[in-house]
Amino acid sequence: MIHNSTYAGQAGSFSSRVQQRAHAIRTWLCVGLDPDLERLPEHLPRTTAGVVQFCTEIVEATHDMATAFKLNFAFFEALGSDGWRAIEAVRRSIPSTVPVIADAKRGDIPHTAAAYARAIFDVLGFDAVTVSPYLGWDAIAPFADRAGTCVLVLSRTSNPGAATFQEVLVGDDPLYLRVARDGLSLETIADIGFVVGATQPRALEAVRALSEDVLLLVPGVGAQGGQAAATLQLGGNRSGDNAIVPVSRDILYASSGKDFAAAARGAAEGRARELWLEYEPTHSGR
Amino acid sequence: MIHNSTYAGQAGSFSSRVQQRAHAIRTWLCVGLDPDLERLPEHLPRTTAGVVQFCTEIVEATHDMATAFKLNFAFFEALGSDGWRAIEAVRRSIPSTVPVIADAKRGDIPHTAAAYARAIFDVLGFDAVTVSPYLGWDAIAPFADRAGTCVLVLSRTSNPGAATFQEVLVGDDPLYLRVARDGLSLETIADIGFVVGATQPRALEAVRALSEDVLLLVPGVGAQGGQAAATLQLGGNRSGDNAIVPVSRDILYASSGKDFAAAARGAAEGRARELWLEYEPTHSGR
Repeated sequence: MIHNSTYAGQAGSFSSRVQQRAHAIRTWLCVGLDPDLERLPEHLPRTTAGVVQFCTEIVEATHDMATAFKLNFAFFEALGSDGWRAIEAVRRSIPSTVPVIADAKRGDIPHTAAAYARAIFDVLGFDAVTVSPYLGWDAIAPFADRAGTCVLVLSRTSNPGAATFQEVLVGDDPLYLRVARDGLSLETIADIGFVVGATQPRALEAVRALSEDVLLLVPGVGAQGGQAAATLQLGGNRSGDNAIVPVSRDILYASSGKDFAAAARGAAEGRARELWLEYEPTHSGR
Repeated sequence: MIHNSTYAGQAGSFSSRVQQRAHAIRTWLCVGLDPDLERLPEHLPRTTAGVVQFCTEIVEATHDMATAFKLNFAFFEALGSDGWRAIEAVRRSIPSTVPVIADAKRGDIPHTAAAYARAIFDVLGFDAVTVSPYLGWDAIAPFADRAGTCVLVLSRTSNPGAATFQEVLVGDDPLYLRVARDGLSLETIADIGFVVGATQPRALEAVRALSEDVLLLVPGVGAQGGQAAATLQLGGNRSGDNAIVPVSRDILYASSGKDFAAAARGAAEGRARELWLEYEPTHSGR
């Protein structure tokens, strides 16, 4: 057993809540809710009601194996205002013991960012939000002034075109690393994490090397090609902790039949087991 | 009269529609709808219904002086799903002759960006959207594959902290300028514009110097301190064209009484006059 690290962050912080839950249920699996109307189980209506039923059944079937849930706002917003009603309904269906991430990638000037933060935290009741760093830290600060919430800043994303700007050199650092280094040095943002794609092992190692304690959100396992256990080895700290690994499509669409929830549970069980390291990672650089 | 430039972009493109409308009503004023519950006229309820009534009356009072409208999604989302219903209602209230910009600052991997694009264009019916460049061009492409729509990419924003990443040097260019230079060279994105804050005269000149034809969205006039006529002189091309200048708070909150719509109309008239250049700009560099 290698899980002897101290909890990241302050008591009651998002990071510490996630860490506690990961240890309690022994997994860094985050179930990602990206409901695609085209891929709903065949017996469900292609409507907002169908999406809500789908997501709430997935939540019911997987919540005891999820260290967190993540809602991808785009797939809800594609339903218009009904999609936002679905976000509200799905959020309410998640037990209060499970932290929930708003994967919304917001980023605007401070006055506007404050309104986005009210939406995500005060109105919708999420615990963490993904944001873009392009506008600088004053535009992120409004997401970071509530107790118990966390801001997850895009560092290195998993898409093919990400290198164009994220790998630009700033001194000796690529931009994505400068974002993470700067963010960790801020005293104004209490609970900050970073998003680094599972398809970017070099970036994962580089960002992790900055801090054992920082929480990383590492998307891209499954449909995008990343391997679960390898992702946690690279993204996690020396104790195999502090890397939230979302899995969406592999779980949501494990079956298109009436057994979709049971199939999702089965897929989540497999992923949950993969996303817990019992051994000291053996790759170089640790 | 200096308005003899050819229309930017292809016939039927967003850029050409905006250019035609600007010439027809002789202004580059864009009325920005950022409804703040705290600042609604005193007689209106602090509810979503109040916001919808407020915005639709502003639209009714100002649409003949607006070359475009811009909805800032954050201020609607701060009302939760009702806010998205308000977006839908306000969008429907805008005459089809006036192009409408979704100021949503989205930015995600291509698969997710495609869902955001469906939301903004297909479901809500907007004509243009603001997006962040941090994820690279493959993440912007899904916003650019519909006829008649436009993607407005953040280049240099108006907030104090923007320099941290946007002014990073990439070769000889600051990052914001590299974004614009790259974007203009893409053959995959037909109608692209850039967002450059009115508080950044050097950036406005630099981006404009790349192209006479490109459309710039130049926020920051009024409450943020930028001057209207000077902004159009800097951001517009040699003919004083192709710079959409949104004004929000100065118009929306011109009066907090029952005369708010008439006061908004008066404020919009003044701004509209300022945002039309009858003379060749005389500052250096042109």
